[in-house]
Amino acid sequence: MPKFTTPQLSWLTTLGKEADIVLASRVRLARNLKNLPFPNRANINDLAQIKELIIRLIPAIESATGLKFDYLEIDKLTHLEQQVLVEKHLISKKLLTNPENRLLILSNDASVAIMVNEDDHLRIQCMASGLDLNTPLAKTFAIDDAIEAYLNIAFDEKMGYLTACPTNLGTGLRASVLLHLPALVMTQQLSKIVNISPQLGLAIRNFFGEDNAGNIFQIDNQLTLGFKEQELIDNLNSTVTEIISHEREARKALLNYSPDKLANRVWRSFGILKYARFISENEMLDLVSKVRLGVDLDIIDETKPELLNILLIASQKNYIQNLQQNENMTPQEIDKQRAHIIRKILQELAPDISMS
Amino acid sequence: MPKFTTPQLSWLTTLGKEADIVLASRVRLARNLKNLPFPNRANINDLAQIKELIIRLIPAIESATGLKFDYLEIDKLTHLEQQVLVEKHLISKKLLTNPENRLLILSNDASVAIMVNEDDHLRIQCMASGLDLNTPLAKTFAIDDAIEAYLNIAFDEKMGYLTACPTNLGTGLRASVLLHLPALVMTQQLSKIVNISPQLGLAIRNFFGEDNAGNIFQIDNQLTLGFKEQELIDNLNSTVTEIISHEREARKALLNYSPDKLANRVWRSFGILKYARFISENEMLDLVSKVRLGVDLDIIDETKPELLNILLIASQKNYIQNLQQNENMTPQEIDKQRAHIIRKILQELAPDISMS
Repeated sequence: MPKFTTPQLSWLTTLGKEADIVLASRVRLARNLKNLPFPNRANINDLAQIKELIIRLIPAIESATGLKFDYLEIDKLTHLEQQVLVEKHLISKKLLTNPENRLLILSNDASVAIMVNEDDHLRIQCMASGLDLNTPLAKTFAIDDAIEAYLNIAFDEKMGYLTACPTNLGTGLRASVLLHLPALVMTQQLSKIVNISPQLGLAIRNFFGEDNAGNIFQIDNQLTLGFKEQELIDNLNSTVTEIISHEREARKALLNYSPDKLANRVWRSFGILKYARFISENEMLDLVSKVRLGVDLDIIDETKPELLNILLIASQKNYIQNLQQNENMTPQEIDKQRAHIIRKILQELAPDISMS
Repeated sequence: MPKFTTPQLSWLTTLGKEADIVLASRVRLARNLKNLPFPNRANINDLAQIKELIIRLIPAIESATGLKFDYLEIDKLTHLEQQVLVEKHLISKKLLTNPENRLLILSNDASVAIMVNEDDHLRIQCMASGLDLNTPLAKTFAIDDAIEAYLNIAFDEKMGYLTACPTNLGTGLRASVLLHLPALVMTQQLSKIVNISPQLGLAIRNFFGEDNAGNIFQIDNQLTLGFKEQELIDNLNSTVTEIISHEREARKALLNYSPDKLANRVWRSFGILKYARFISENEMLDLVSKVRLGVDLDIIDETKPELLNILLIASQKNYIQNLQQNENMTPQEIDKQRAHIIRKILQELAPDISMS
């Protein structure tokens, strides 16, 4: 099934706006059906009913979005397939806890991923490459409208949309942007941005959970109540635009202050990526981040910017194990296979030298 | 003057015997003219006289060896040129202390280097690639004979050849072999060999003075008295042959025990050498040693074995500064230029891919 064996995601290309810094934008709406308990309190019959109600709406969702959809029953997937969906950020880990009657409704281009019976009955997630929150916002609204045309959604005039967790109450909206910020990390300016983000109602954190791994950060809104959706989006958008300009300045400073040192770090990273026979995930993230910075700053011409985007999926451990159809690979075997995959992708992304 | 701007030395190729492990063999004879004081006690007139006597013998040395010779007056060389000769191991540092009336008489293929007025009046040094002590021994004898045909040499029936330092008394012979022993170092077996060498009348030490830098070691005889020249050579030769077989076993063990780990170390070293923008001398030695091991074990096919031999000269700091005609390069500038030179040489040594 190509869902599980291709690292390509339509919303993780290098074609979007500000794509030298912003990897992807994402909007999700939390929705619940009226008069049915939230999934964590629902019994098996409720859950099955919710599932069936939603499956019947897929044609309506298709015509609202112009996209084709499949649905995946989570409990019918292998363990590795489940984990690959998590690695691709199409589902949360939580959806796997009780997989029965849980669904992922996924558009064929992977730009829309609707979780059924996670914390809420519906988590409508829409993604776009680069900095573009309005396209996913419009898509989530279109899907929400299509659903509300057939089903009653839990809504309170005062509170807005009702959700399982109070942090989602109101709009039920969470918008997030994935940023590659190597220069802010190298120049030790990122902490300032992290520190002021709560005052702006935003949170920024490393996407891979470890300090600065890959220099990739997710920023999203923490408030959902008391604002209109567009206000939340605009607020996030303007902060991200600020961060982008800081990152650009930091990149310029690195280039001006020590171009040779920067080139040395970038090219050494490229050399190791290209030739190593074992690479851990954290080392890969560190190296590919530096290489991507080098590509963005025209220091390196031996690969393309999408190297980073592809490797974010293609070199993750469950993806690798699923490709090998082997759930019991040792960490060493995974590191070896990761190095192999990286070399293959670098070859595919090498500039055409036949005419040089 | 190509002497100072080419890293190629005829005795440091990869064409000799056991060339996967033995870089070069060297024999030198210490000789002094009768009735003239040793250089450290000689006055300026003595030194000038010795110098003139030797210069007049160059035609005889040429016909004895079939080689063309030049002589370099050490005090007429620039500081960098002097240092390059030291880096190429054609002269000792000691020859530079009082450069006046000091000479290097050098064959055009650099396989014969005669120092005049170092510790002794004559230090006749002959070199060969790989393990081959007999060719240099025969050459030093031929030169010695040519000189003794015209000049009286200080010789004592009981003591043998008289030398400035008693450690050279007797034969005046020092034979040495330059070995690349990465596998013995990696498997931590080298210390055993170092420990037993004094019992064999031999000394082994790192060629670059630092612990294990480049995994290159020089082994030579410590005894000069009480043995015939051929006995000293044979003794050294048989110990070296032993060491070679230990190194080969250690290489096999590395290949058998952890081929992937070895490949990982080798290829990572290659990647850094190929792409780094700054490389220190010690890092270069470490990397090029691993790459050479990889080439010798058919792990790597993207470069040739002579990479190591060439870089031993071409990436040394005085050689680099002399190429740039700049004696005041900062360590950073040297590291940058070294990385540049390495990339250039790697390009020249790349396999021909036009037909692949």
